[in-house]
Amino acid sequence: MSESGHYRPEAGMDVPRFAGIPTFMRLPHRRLAEAQGVDIGIVGVPWDGGTTNRPGARHGPRQLRDASTMIRLVNQATGVRPFELVRCADLGDAPVNPANLQDSLARIEDFHRRLVEAGITPLTVGGDHLITLPILRALARRHRPLALVQFDAHTDFYDAYFGGERYTHGTPFRRAVEEGLIDPGKVVQIGIRGTAYDGEDVRWARAQGARVIMIEEYYDRGPAWAMEEVRRIVGDHPCYVSFDVDALDPSQAPGTGTPEIGGIFTHDAQRMIRRLAGLRLVGADVVELSPPFDPSGMTAWVAANLLFELLCVLALARGGGPARRDAGV
Amino acid sequence: MSESGHYRPEAGMDVPRFAGIPTFMRLPHRRLAEAQGVDIGIVGVPWDGGTTNRPGARHGPRQLRDASTMIRLVNQATGVRPFELVRCADLGDAPVNPANLQDSLARIEDFHRRLVEAGITPLTVGGDHLITLPILRALARRHRPLALVQFDAHTDFYDAYFGGERYTHGTPFRRAVEEGLIDPGKVVQIGIRGTAYDGEDVRWARAQGARVIMIEEYYDRGPAWAMEEVRRIVGDHPCYVSFDVDALDPSQAPGTGTPEIGGIFTHDAQRMIRRLAGLRLVGADVVELSPPFDPSGMTAWVAANLLFELLCVLALARGGGPARRDAGV
Amino acid sequence: MSESGHYRPEAGMDVPRFAGIPTFMRLPHRRLAEAQGVDIGIVGVPWDGGTTNRPGARHGPRQLRDASTMIRLVNQATGVRPFELVRCADLGDAPVNPANLQDSLARIEDFHRRLVEAGITPLTVGGDHLITLPILRALARRHRPLALVQFDAHTDFYDAYFGGERYTHGTPFRRAVEEGLIDPGKVVQIGIRGTAYDGEDVRWARAQGARVIMIEEYYDRGPAWAMEEVRRIVGDHPCYVSFDVDALDPSQAPGTGTPEIGGIFTHDAQRMIRRLAGLRLVGADVVELSPPFDPSGMTAWVAANLLFELLCVLALARGGGPARRDAGV
Amino acid sequence: MSESGHYRPEAGMDVPRFAGIPTFMRLPHRRLAEAQGVDIGIVGVPWDGGTTNRPGARHGPRQLRDASTMIRLVNQATGVRPFELVRCADLGDAPVNPANLQDSLARIEDFHRRLVEAGITPLTVGGDHLITLPILRALARRHRPLALVQFDAHTDFYDAYFGGERYTHGTPFRRAVEEGLIDPGKVVQIGIRGTAYDGEDVRWARAQGARVIMIEEYYDRGPAWAMEEVRRIVGDHPCYVSFDVDALDPSQAPGTGTPEIGGIFTHDAQRMIRRLAGLRLVGADVVELSPPFDPSGMTAWVAANLLFELLCVLALARGGGPARRDAGV
Amino acid sequence: MSESGHYRPEAGMDVPRFAGIPTFMRLPHRRLAEAQGVDIGIVGVPWDGGTTNRPGARHGPRQLRDASTMIRLVNQATGVRPFELVRCADLGDAPVNPANLQDSLARIEDFHRRLVEAGITPLTVGGDHLITLPILRALARRHRPLALVQFDAHTDFYDAYFGGERYTHGTPFRRAVEEGLIDPGKVVQIGIRGTAYDGEDVRWARAQGARVIMIEEYYDRGPAWAMEEVRRIVGDHPCYVSFDVDALDPSQAPGTGTPEIGGIFTHDAQRMIRRLAGLRLVGADVVELSPPFDPSGMTAWVAANLLFELLCVLALARGGGPARRDAGV
Amino acid sequence: MSESGHYRPEAGMDVPRFAGIPTFMRLPHRRLAEAQGVDIGIVGVPWDGGTTNRPGARHGPRQLRDASTMIRLVNQATGVRPFELVRCADLGDAPVNPANLQDSLARIEDFHRRLVEAGITPLTVGGDHLITLPILRALARRHRPLALVQFDAHTDFYDAYFGGERYTHGTPFRRAVEEGLIDPGKVVQIGIRGTAYDGEDVRWARAQGARVIMIEEYYDRGPAWAMEEVRRIVGDHPCYVSFDVDALDPSQAPGTGTPEIGGIFTHDAQRMIRRLAGLRLVGADVVELSPPFDPSGMTAWVAANLLFELLCVLALARGGGPARRDAGV
Repeated sequence: MSESGHYRPEAGMDVPRFAGIPTFMRLPHRRLAEAQGVDIGIVGVPWDGGTTNRPGARHGPRQLRDASTMIRLVNQATGVRPFELVRCADLGDAPVNPANLQDSLARIEDFHRRLVEAGITPLTVGGDHLITLPILRALARRHRPLALVQFDAHTDFYDAYFGGERYTHGTPFRRAVEEGLIDPGKVVQIGIRGTAYDGEDVRWARAQGARVIMIEEYYDRGPAWAMEEVRRIVGDHPCYVSFDVDALDPSQAPGTGTPEIGGIFTHDAQRMIRRLAGLRLVGADVVELSPPFDPSGMTAWVAANLLFELLCVLALARGGGPARRDAGV
Repeated sequence: MSESGHYRPEAGMDVPRFAGIPTFMRLPHRRLAEAQGVDIGIVGVPWDGGTTNRPGARHGPRQLRDASTMIRLVNQATGVRPFELVRCADLGDAPVNPANLQDSLARIEDFHRRLVEAGITPLTVGGDHLITLPILRALARRHRPLALVQFDAHTDFYDAYFGGERYTHGTPFRRAVEEGLIDPGKVVQIGIRGTAYDGEDVRWARAQGARVIMIEEYYDRGPAWAMEEVRRIVGDHPCYVSFDVDALDPSQAPGTGTPEIGGIFTHDAQRMIRRLAGLRLVGADVVELSPPFDPSGMTAWVAANLLFELLCVLALARGGGPARRDAGV
Repeated sequence: MSESGHYRPEAGMDVPRFAGIPTFMRLPHRRLAEAQGVDIGIVGVPWDGGTTNRPGARHGPRQLRDASTMIRLVNQATGVRPFELVRCADLGDAPVNPANLQDSLARIEDFHRRLVEAGITPLTVGGDHLITLPILRALARRHRPLALVQFDAHTDFYDAYFGGERYTHGTPFRRAVEEGLIDPGKVVQIGIRGTAYDGEDVRWARAQGARVIMIEEYYDRGPAWAMEEVRRIVGDHPCYVSFDVDALDPSQAPGTGTPEIGGIFTHDAQRMIRRLAGLRLVGADVVELSPPFDPSGMTAWVAANLLFELLCVLALARGGGPARRDAGV
Repeated sequence: MSESGHYRPEAGMDVPRFAGIPTFMRLPHRRLAEAQGVDIGIVGVPWDGGTTNRPGARHGPRQLRDASTMIRLVNQATGVRPFELVRCADLGDAPVNPANLQDSLARIEDFHRRLVEAGITPLTVGGDHLITLPILRALARRHRPLALVQFDAHTDFYDAYFGGERYTHGTPFRRAVEEGLIDPGKVVQIGIRGTAYDGEDVRWARAQGARVIMIEEYYDRGPAWAMEEVRRIVGDHPCYVSFDVDALDPSQAPGTGTPEIGGIFTHDAQRMIRRLAGLRLVGADVVELSPPFDPSGMTAWVAANLLFELLCVLALARGGGPARRDAGV
Repeated sequence: MSESGHYRPEAGMDVPRFAGIPTFMRLPHRRLAEAQGVDIGIVGVPWDGGTTNRPGARHGPRQLRDASTMIRLVNQATGVRPFELVRCADLGDAPVNPANLQDSLARIEDFHRRLVEAGITPLTVGGDHLITLPILRALARRHRPLALVQFDAHTDFYDAYFGGERYTHGTPFRRAVEEGLIDPGKVVQIGIRGTAYDGEDVRWARAQGARVIMIEEYYDRGPAWAMEEVRRIVGDHPCYVSFDVDALDPSQAPGTGTPEIGGIFTHDAQRMIRRLAGLRLVGADVVELSPPFDPSGMTAWVAANLLFELLCVLALARGGGPARRDAGV
Repeated sequence: MSESGHYRPEAGMDVPRFAGIPTFMRLPHRRLAEAQGVDIGIVGVPWDGGTTNRPGARHGPRQLRDASTMIRLVNQATGVRPFELVRCADLGDAPVNPANLQDSLARIEDFHRRLVEAGITPLTVGGDHLITLPILRALARRHRPLALVQFDAHTDFYDAYFGGERYTHGTPFRRAVEEGLIDPGKVVQIGIRGTAYDGEDVRWARAQGARVIMIEEYYDRGPAWAMEEVRRIVGDHPCYVSFDVDALDPSQAPGTGTPEIGGIFTHDAQRMIRRLAGLRLVGADVVELSPPFDPSGMTAWVAANLLFELLCVLALARGGGPARRDAGV
C-alpha cells in the first residue's frame, strides 16, 4: 500500500492539526495534469453566481479546507479507513468567473469532464447548488441518466426566477431532468421543508416520478426508514449524492444562504450517509456552505465531517472487491 | 379574492427577498386609521422596560421585520395559505415610552384597544413579556376571561421583584389572573424549566388551577400529548397564545434575555402551533426576542417562522366558514 | 413649509429611533408613481452581481435603512436642515435580477431614468460599484458628460477581468468614459491605495486626464487641499458624487468587500463632503457596504451618516435660491 | 506604606492576569461597611433605565471589571503609581432597581452619599449617563455647586423626551443645573457632535454659560488647547469628571448605545485626562459602556484604561502633599 | 441552618443577577486558608498548557463565573436545594504557570491536596482536561483507586503526542491508570465519537477493562440505559465525575477546543447527571470550556447549568443522612 | 525573468482571489528540501507556548495565509515589484510542539538554520514573540550580533515571569542580548506603551544602550523622525526587523493577545516599513496575530499588508545591484 501512501493526510500526532497549508483533509495537492493514479479527487468550486438570496458560498471551499484539517484518518463509527482503500488528492479549485454565469457553468463542466476522463471520482465542495448541474453534465458522458440522492431543505426543482431566469441555485434539477442527466424516477430528496412559493416545484417533481420526502414524513418515520426508501428506489443504478447543508437544522449549520428551521440533526445525517455504503456511487458534493454567515465556523466543521463521511462511502464504492469492502461497514 | 390581494406579500420570485423596505412578511403597511377591512394586524411593541435581566427586546420588532421578508406564501406542512384566507397588514409599532413603565403599558393597551374595536385580530411582536398584560387588558373588553396557551421557560407568575416591583416581565400572568383577564383554570404553560428562586410561582399557579407542564413531563410524554392536554383544557373557550422564544432550546434561539438550557426544539414548536388549529383563537404574540444577543440573526429567523405558523392558525380561526377551512389543515 | 412637512422624518423625541418600519432616515415611503413633488429621492439598489471578490453588497440598502433611523434632523456642524430645504422620500429599491447582470443594469437604468424624468435628484444606496454605471447612463440623458468626484480605495478604471469581463465593479468608470457619460478631465478620485495588479488602471485614467489622488498625496497635503483640487477641477460643471465606503479606513468601515488598510478617517470624510457645498451636484451614491462583513453594524452607521452629509449638500444644490441657501452653510 | 499594601492589586507577574475573581483592577473587594480607610472607591452602577435608545449599559460594570484585570500598576506615560499614593478598593455595585427609575436614582444617591460621608472619593462605572445625576446629588452635600469636565458626543442637556420624560440619559446635566448641583459657568464639554434634533440643548447650555466644545473646534485647535480651556475655566474649583465612552470614535469604542462617527481618538483621550492633574478633582465616572454592542470586548478594554487614567489623576488630587505629587507627573 | 447561610448565593430577587462581582454562583469568596467549614469548594484552574489543538480553556473559569451568576437556588427538576444541604464557597483559582507544564501540574495538585486535607469536596472548573490528572493525584491520597464517570467526545486515553509528549489533554487517563489513581475496571466513558487517529486509545482502554460507550451505542440505547450501565459498574465505589463540554453537541457547546459533531444534547446531559444521585461522589469537574470560541457565551451558560447539576449530586453525596437525601431526588 | 516566474503569485485577474489553496500571497509551496534557488522564504511558526496572557497566536500563520491571497503584485506607493526582484516561495510551517516549550524552540531554530544555510532570507509569521529568539539564534550563525528594529507595544525585555520562567513572549530580547545575538546598542523599539509592572524592563534595556521610543515621544515627533532615528542607529549593520501587531492601535488590530490602546495607525506603519529600504536587512517577522480574538479577520488583513511591505524592503535588500533597486523606491 506504499503507493497510496503518497495520497494520505499528514498525521495530526506529528504535525498539529492547526499547522500547515490547508488542503482538503491535509491531502497532497495535485494539479489536474498531475493527477494520474488518483482515485478520488476533492475539488472546490468557489462560485455563487446562481444564488437568488444571501450570497457567500463562493467562499465555501476555502473555509472548508481550513476546517477539514481537523479530520483524522479513521471513521470511528464504521471502521472505514478511506485513505487506505483509495488514493485521494486535493485537486484545487475548478476555474470560475464571478461575473459570468454561463461561462462559469462551462468552466466547471470542463474541469469535471477532465476528471471523469482521467477515471477520477469527483467529490466536490461548492459553491451554490447550481454547480451540481455542470458536474452532472460532466458525469453524464459516462453514466446517463443518473440516480440522485439529495439532502436538502429545498427541491431546487423550480422552473425560473425573476421573470425567466432558468439557471439559478433553485433550478438545477429541473434542468438536469430536462437534459436527461438524471432519471426522475430514481431521485430521492430528503428534508424538504419551509414556507413555499406555491408548491409547484414539488408537484412537478412528483409528476416526473421523483420521491420527495418532506421533513414531516422524515420525522414521523425516521432516518433509517428514509435510507431504506433510498436503497429501494436507487437500487444498483449509478448514483450521485448531493448534500446541501441547508438540509441540516440551522442551529447546527447556520452558515448557509437560505436556512429553514426544523431541519435534520447532524448525527442522523452522518448515519444516513453511512447507509449509502453499497450503492454504486459515482460522485458526490457538499454545497451551499456560506462562510460569511458562519461566524463561529461551526458549519464548516459540520460540512468537513460530512465530506469525510461521503469520502468513506465513495471509497467503499470505488475500492471495489469484497476484500476491501470487508475493511469497511 | 382580488380585494384581499391588496393585503398580500410581494412575491419573492419577482422581487428578491432581501430587497425592499422590510415590513412584516412584506405585507402592506397600514396606519391604524387606515386599517379598516384588515382581518389580522401584525403589530410591533418595541419595548423592554419590564426586563429584570438582559435587555434588548425593544429591538425585537425591527429585527423580526427584517427576517420575516424571507417568509413565502404557503405553509408547506399544512397547506394553509393565510394570505388567501384573510386580509393581513403590518400596522406598524405601538407607541411606547422607554423611560416610563406605566405610561408604556397604557399606550400599548390603547393601541390594541383600537385594533380590537376595529375588529382586527392582533398578532403582536415584542418586546418583553410584560407587553402581554396590556394586550390582554385590551382583548378583555371583548372576551373576559380568556384561556391562555403559553410556550415559555418561565411561568411569569411571580408576584414581585426587587422588593415590591409588581410590573416586570416575570409577573404579567399573576396580574392578569388578579385582574380577571385570564381564567387560571384555562391556562396551559409548556416548557417551564431552569433553576428556580424557590418555586413559589409554580405553586401559586397550580393553586389557581393552571396547568404547568414542566419540561421533564414534556420530554417524557411528547409534544403531541402536550397539545392534547391543551385542547382538553381550553376547549372552545376564546383563547390567546403567547410564545416566549425562551421556550426554545438556546442552541436554536440564543437571542433572548433569559435563556434556559434543555428547551423545546423548533420542529416540535412548529408542530405544536399547528395543532392549535380549530381552537377559538383571538390573538397571539411572539415575545422576548433580543437582537443584541442574536449576532447570527438565527433567533429572528426562528421567530419569523413561528410568527408565520401563528398567523396560519389565527387565519384559520378568523377565516370562519368550513369552505375556507377546507383550504387549510 | 407645511407642504414639505409630509416629506420629513418622524421625530426621535416622539417615537424612539429604534421603533417603526425602517425607511431611509424615517422618511415617508413613496412608490415612484406617487413621487411627484419629491425633490430628492433616496433609492436602494440591492445588487452585487458585478462583485469580483467578497459579495454581500446586495444587502446594503436593507442594512443602511435600519441604521439610518438613528439620523436626526439637523447637521450640527453646518447648520443645514435638509428636510426644511427640500422634499425627500424613500423611493424603495430599484428592481434587480440577481441572476442576470445585463438585465440588472437595464432595470437600474430604467428606474433612475424615470426619476430623472420626474425631476427628482437621485441619492442612491448600493449595491456594488457597478450600479453607478446605469445611474450615470440615466443622468446622462440630461447632463452629458458629467464631472465626477469619487471617494474610493480603487480607481474602478480597469478594462476587464477574468479574461474579458468588461462589466464588473472594477470597470464602471472606464465604461463611463468610453460611453461619454463622464468627462475624464473633470474626474477627481481621492483615496486610491492598496497593492496593485500592475497599475494600468491609474496610467489609463491619467492619460485620459483624470485626477487620481493617491492616499500618499492625500496624507501629505490633507483633506482641505484635496477639496480645493476638487473645486478647481470640477468648477460649476454638473457633477456626480460617488462614495465607495472602502475609501475609509477598515477600522471604521470593515463591512465592505475589498478593504484596503491605511484609508481615510471618517471625520475627514465628513468634512470633505461638506466642502462639496456650492458645487452643481446632480446626484450621488454610497456603495459597497457589505453587511455580512459588518457584524457590529458600525459600517452601516458610518454610511448612514455619510448619506446624510451627501443629502445636505444635494439639498443645498437643489434648494436653489439664496434664501434657502441662507438656511444652510 | 505597608498599610496601603492591602489595597493594591495582585501582581500579574505572580498570578496570570486572566486568573482569579475579577474585581476592578484586581483590587480587594470591600463592602461599604468595611471600607474605612479607603481613599478612592471604585463602584459599579449596573443600570440603564434612563436609556432612550440602545440598552445594555447595565452590563457595563461586570464587563469592565473583567477587562480591568489586565491593568498593571504603573502609569508608564506619567510615572504615577496610584496604588502607592492612595488606598483603593472595589466597593462592589450600588443597588439598583431595573424596573423603577426613581427608586434607582434614590438608591444610587444613597450609596454614594455613604461613600462621601466616609471620606471616600468615588470613581464610578456606569450604567447610562443618568447615573451621574444621583452621584452629583451625593457629592453636592459636600461641594456645591461643582465644576464639571465632560467628555461626550452629546450634551445631555436636553429638557425632556417622549412628551415629558424629564429623567433620561439625555437630561442629567439640565437637571443638575436646575438643582444647583453644578455651576454652568464652570462646565466644559468636549467632543459634542452628530446630527441634532434641533440644537436647543446646545443653545440652552451656552445661555447658562457652559463651554460646549464641538468636535469641529476640537479638531481645529487640538486636545492640548482643549485642556487649556478646561484649566482656564475650572481653575481650582472642586471638579467632577464624567467620561461618556461615546465621546470616542466608534472604531475604538463601538460598545455604546448611541455612537457618533468622527470622534476623539484614544491616545488623545489619554493625554487629555492626564492633563487634569492638578485640578481639584472630587470624583469621576466612566459611563455608557454597553457590552452587548461590544462583541470583541475592545470598548471595555479602552474603558478600563481610561478608568486607570482617571484613577491616576484622582490619586494625585487625593494624595495631597507635594511629596506624593513628586512621585507623579 | 443559619450557619450555612453565610455560604449561600445572593438572591436574584434582591440584587439583579447581572450585578456585582462574579463569583461562582454568587457564592462568598473564601481563600483556602479561610475555608474551614466549607463542604464543597468550587475552584477554577485557568490553564490550558496541555492543549494540542485550539487553546483558550485558560479563560474558562473567568467566563464560567460570569455566566454562573444567572443560576438560582433550587433545582426545579429534582427539588434539590444544594445551598441548604451543604456549605459552599468560591475558593478562587488554583495557581498556575502558563509557561511551564510540570510546574503547573504540581501547583494544581498542591492546591487540591490542601482542599482534600481540609475535608472539602472539590468541584473544579477548567482549564483543559489535563488538569484532571493532578486533581486525581490529590484525591488519591484519600481514595485510591477511584471510579471515574467521564462525559467526553474523546477517551483522553492516548499515550503520547508529537513524538513523545506524555502529558497533554489527550493523555490524562492513561497516566491516571498507570499511576494507579483510577481503576480502569470502574471507568465509564460516554459520548466518544469523531474521526480517529487509529483507534489505539479505545483498544487500550478496553483492554484495561474500561467501559467506552461510543456515541452510536448511546444513541441506540439512550441516556437512561447509559446511566444504568454507570450505576452497575461503579456501584458504591468512591467515584469522580469529569465532564468535558465537548461531550455535548457543538450546536449547544461551540466554545471548546476540539468539537465533534453529533454529540449529546443538553437535556439528556442534565438528566444523566441527575442520575448520579446516590453514587459515592468525591469530586467533579467541568473542563475544556474555551471562551474565545464561544462568542455568544452560550457554552458558558450551558456549562454553568451543568456545574449546578454536579453541585446538586455532590451536595446529596456530601449531605449524608437519609433525612437530607429526602430533600432531594 | 522567466525563471523567477515560477515563484510568482497566481494573478487575481485570472483566478479570483478567494479561490484556491491559500499559500502565502498565492506563492508556490516548496518544502525546504526543494527550496534551492529561493531568495526569500515565507515561513509560518504556529506556536504560542510562550504566551503569558491570551493565547491563539498558534493560529496566526493559517489565518494570515488566508488573508494574504488578497495581496496583489505591485506596491502602489513605492512602485516595488518584489516578485520581479527576487524568487519567493511559501516554505510551509516550521515544526512545533504545542506541549513542550524548549523542544519547540529547538525545532524552530533548526528549521531556520536550514534556511540560512540554503541562503534563503527568512520572512516569518508567528506565533508569539518568543519565536523570534530561535530565529535570531539561527541567523546569528551568519550575522552576530544583529541590529534590531522592533515595532511593539511592549519591550519584551523582561527577565522572568511567574517566579522564574525565563522563556516567555515577554523575555526574548533579554535572552537575545544575554546570548550575544543582538547588539543592544543597535536596538530600536517603537511604540512602547501601556500600563507597566514597574518599568524595570525599560530601565534595563536603556542601560544596555537600547533606544526605546515610547509612544508619547513617537506621537510628539512623528513616524518620519522615528525612522531617521532608526537609520542613524542601525546604519549599515546587518539588521533584523520584528513587527509585533500589538504595536498597532487595537481598533485596527484587535486580534492580538495583549492589546494596548493608543497605538500606531496602519498608514504610519506602512510608511515606516517603507523607510527601511536601503538598510541591510537579513530577515523579518510579523508576530502575535491571534485569530480567536479577530472575529472580523481585519487584523489578519492588516498583517498581510504589513507582511507585503516587509517583503518589499527585504526584496530590495536582497535584490542587490543598482539595476534592480531602480525598479523600486
